[in-house]
Amino acid sequence: MIEIQAAVAKVAKYAVSESGDTLEMIERPGGGLSLVLTDGQGSGAGAKALSHLAARKAVSLLADGVRDGAAARATHDFLYAHKKGRVSATLNIVSVDLITNTIVISRNSHCPVIVADPVSLHVYDQPCQPIGIYPRTKPVITEIPIAPGITAVIYSDGVLHAGERTGQRLDVVAALEDLLQDRYAAAQAVADGLLAAAVARDRGRPGDDVSVVVVAVRPRPDTTDTVRRLSMTFPIL
Amino acid sequence: MIEIQAAVAKVAKYAVSESGDTLEMIERPGGGLSLVLTDGQGSGAGAKALSHLAARKAVSLLADGVRDGAAARATHDFLYAHKKGRVSATLNIVSVDLITNTIVISRNSHCPVIVADPVSLHVYDQPCQPIGIYPRTKPVITEIPIAPGITAVIYSDGVLHAGERTGQRLDVVAALEDLLQDRYAAAQAVADGLLAAAVARDRGRPGDDVSVVVVAVRPRPDTTDTVRRLSMTFPIL
Repeated sequence: MIEIQAAVAKVAKYAVSESGDTLEMIERPGGGLSLVLTDGQGSGAGAKALSHLAARKAVSLLADGVRDGAAARATHDFLYAHKKGRVSATLNIVSVDLITNTIVISRNSHCPVIVADPVSLHVYDQPCQPIGIYPRTKPVITEIPIAPGITAVIYSDGVLHAGERTGQRLDVVAALEDLLQDRYAAAQAVADGLLAAAVARDRGRPGDDVSVVVVAVRPRPDTTDTVRRLSMTFPIL
Repeated sequence: MIEIQAAVAKVAKYAVSESGDTLEMIERPGGGLSLVLTDGQGSGAGAKALSHLAARKAVSLLADGVRDGAAARATHDFLYAHKKGRVSATLNIVSVDLITNTIVISRNSHCPVIVADPVSLHVYDQPCQPIGIYPRTKPVITEIPIAPGITAVIYSDGVLHAGERTGQRLDVVAALEDLLQDRYAAAQAVADGLLAAAVARDRGRPGDDVSVVVVAVRPRPDTTDTVRRLSMTFPIL
């Protein structure tokens, strides 16, 4: 008896009101869910409009049942055609596919994806390109069977570059080893913990938009509880 | 210093693996978010395909910046045209609009929407039609200024009809008065509480898909915490 936990923690670059990263989540038509994280080049309103456009395209394809790799290719083609190869964005798709019983991670980003299983942490950092600027760009895809104790962590630039200005770059793997000492740690605790570590390295003033997405497979304590839950908070004013 | 909390609790009809209700959430292009809840006629796979189709259409229009009332009308027109007026679905849209600083609730459902302010509970149950079957169907729209202590509660049939089989129908307003004695109660606690009350009236075996959506405006205890958070759990196997 297991459950899927998905969690996102997200904060804008210091003194910028709007994060240039976009995160969208949808239910897959065959069951399960997909999370899409995009980071548009630059920051502020322009980056936001770009990342929103790319995320919406990917999500709408996934909602139509398009497979993840094809959705990533199509989102690139769309951006490349409409923006004439002049703007780039990163695109990450994490899907919990209940037909194949796998977690599918599609990467078009220089940020690695990290997957913990009960034994070790795996860093997926194969070379790949962002979408939007090179013809025929395709994603790097990783597929992992759904099993208790699996935790997939996706993050944006703000985590990768945290601490660079102060010469104290964040060691993401070490931070996650620490947060995942208990391999059944709640997804939200892992997301909040990694985001906090990144922001701390930037002395509370993030030099870029920071987003962390965590998808975790966990044992279900109460097997009679079949309720799905979704919770969201965001500060305003 | 306030925050928006959105929470969903959702369970399928007893002995049916898949809920016929669909809930989707998106970020609005102008800021804020929209939640869309649809309930397709019938139950099981057919109802699910229908509610998914309607929800996807509404969400994709909202993501393009279409105003809520127009998105509801267009979703009806789409369903009516494609299904030739032969299938119906309920459609509720709740939006937190940061341009107008209001919560906008669009109703095409026989289920009332309940809004609590710090003083009293308001039941919005003006007559309206589901989408898909009558020509030129339009939504009933309610707009409420964003202010601390506001709680909007949207629910599906499973809550409305809870307890009918046993002759002990759930009094939704009384249940919410109880859950909202503290008008700053967390959105997730309100959603979980109403869902639990509905399921209890059906003696643990819901006679229909049960979905509860809560959007709440709350004071923000830590004003330096500007992190957005999203959390999701769903049981599998």
